[in-house]
Amino acid sequence: MLKLVGFDADDTLWHSEGFYREVHDHFERILGHYLDLDNAKVHDRLLEVERVNIKVFGYGAKGMTLSMLETAIALTGERISARHLHEIMNLGKEVLSHPVELLDGIAPAVAEIAREYQVVLITKGDLFHQESKVAKSGLSALFGRIEIVSEKDPATYRRVLSEFGLAPEQFLMVGNSLRSDIAPVLQIGGFAVHMPYPLTWALEHHDDFVGDAERMRTVAAAAEIPAAVQALALNAARRH
Amino acid sequence: MLKLVGFDADDTLWHSEGFYREVHDHFERILGHYLDLDNAKVHDRLLEVERVNIKVFGYGAKGMTLSMLETAIALTGERISARHLHEIMNLGKEVLSHPVELLDGIAPAVAEIAREYQVVLITKGDLFHQESKVAKSGLSALFGRIEIVSEKDPATYRRVLSEFGLAPEQFLMVGNSLRSDIAPVLQIGGFAVHMPYPLTWALEHHDDFVGDAERMRTVAAAAEIPAAVQALALNAARRH
Repeated sequence: MLKLVGFDADDTLWHSEGFYREVHDHFERILGHYLDLDNAKVHDRLLEVERVNIKVFGYGAKGMTLSMLETAIALTGERISARHLHEIMNLGKEVLSHPVELLDGIAPAVAEIAREYQVVLITKGDLFHQESKVAKSGLSALFGRIEIVSEKDPATYRRVLSEFGLAPEQFLMVGNSLRSDIAPVLQIGGFAVHMPYPLTWALEHHDDFVGDAERMRTVAAAAEIPAAVQALALNAARRH
Repeated sequence: MLKLVGFDADDTLWHSEGFYREVHDHFERILGHYLDLDNAKVHDRLLEVERVNIKVFGYGAKGMTLSMLETAIALTGERISARHLHEIMNLGKEVLSHPVELLDGIAPAVAEIAREYQVVLITKGDLFHQESKVAKSGLSALFGRIEIVSEKDPATYRRVLSEFGLAPEQFLMVGNSLRSDIAPVLQIGGFAVHMPYPLTWALEHHDDFVGDAERMRTVAAAAEIPAAVQALALNAARRH
């Protein structure tokens, strides 16, 4: 029997990647004052620094800000001005204090699911940032609990479920990332609803995904999530 | 009956504030290239920026690094060089990848307590940083679970305890901070062992603390923690 439904946060409950893209564009324009590199090269270099720094910083907007500063200093050979570095730092602060824009239809979808199942937010962003977004989102009454994890892999989902005293087949995850929200949950024997977001961060790309018709649904909009959960819950019940 | 013993992390399990002080000293030396201000003024200004930024960044080394960069840019009127800002950023990275030095006697003390009670690490640092410190510390077998909280106040401790299905009188917290580890736990009706650390971050100062002889012990060293827990556990049992 399905008991617990987990929701990813960024680009599942509210828009996120679009803000990051805007910030990256602005960042590339600043570096354009110093460099002949085209934006694609700046972007690749930033991604490379982020990939290395995630091992030190973890995920989230603060780490991204530090990675932008480091990339700017390195790519300009320490020629960039403090004024421009200040501008880059303020880009990071804007991301951290950005208003929350919910995805269309997500609030009623979560509310409908919460009437039948316990819901939990599972995210690898910064705790502080995600808590403030939940507070701004108007969804705090539904999400009494936020699970911050440093990586969304099978071991992490197993640990979270053991804290709830549940087996994987009692759990369903809703999210936009095949790599973080869907594949690891299917792998441990849970259920998943995939709601693709138009933009995906390069470090979330997942090219070798294999689906599972009985334990997974893909939806095009938040309004379709409750029915997908219901269909998978029936499959879960039938297995017993 | 006492069931769960929580441990703070920084300056309770391992040394931390000393590294931050070294970083701040180094930071003040860098700013000395630009400013006539004495170090105390630089320090006060950094603290002021940190106090404001905690509302945006939360606690932890990444937020501290961003606050140092912001303070350096502001205090120098954007005159500081990218080379010096790079040096400041690397100070932050050093804190994040610093080797873990356990406090004397803490590992056997935690192990002894873990034989009788469930133990949990409760910290408001960055999840990623704290997980990597637990891994380096050799204490991961004892701390299966890390609770990252954005603020250590009575509401937070109540929420953590409700996740464990426990009442406050079944919980004891061990830590160095009166403000974060001791006062809020006593306030909700739990027990506490205070182990002062020689250094306290200014934002953790707590001047109006009132103790509780029946529900709190102060120890001078980690080796004294198990006996203090035992004494308080007897008080807990006697109340029933």
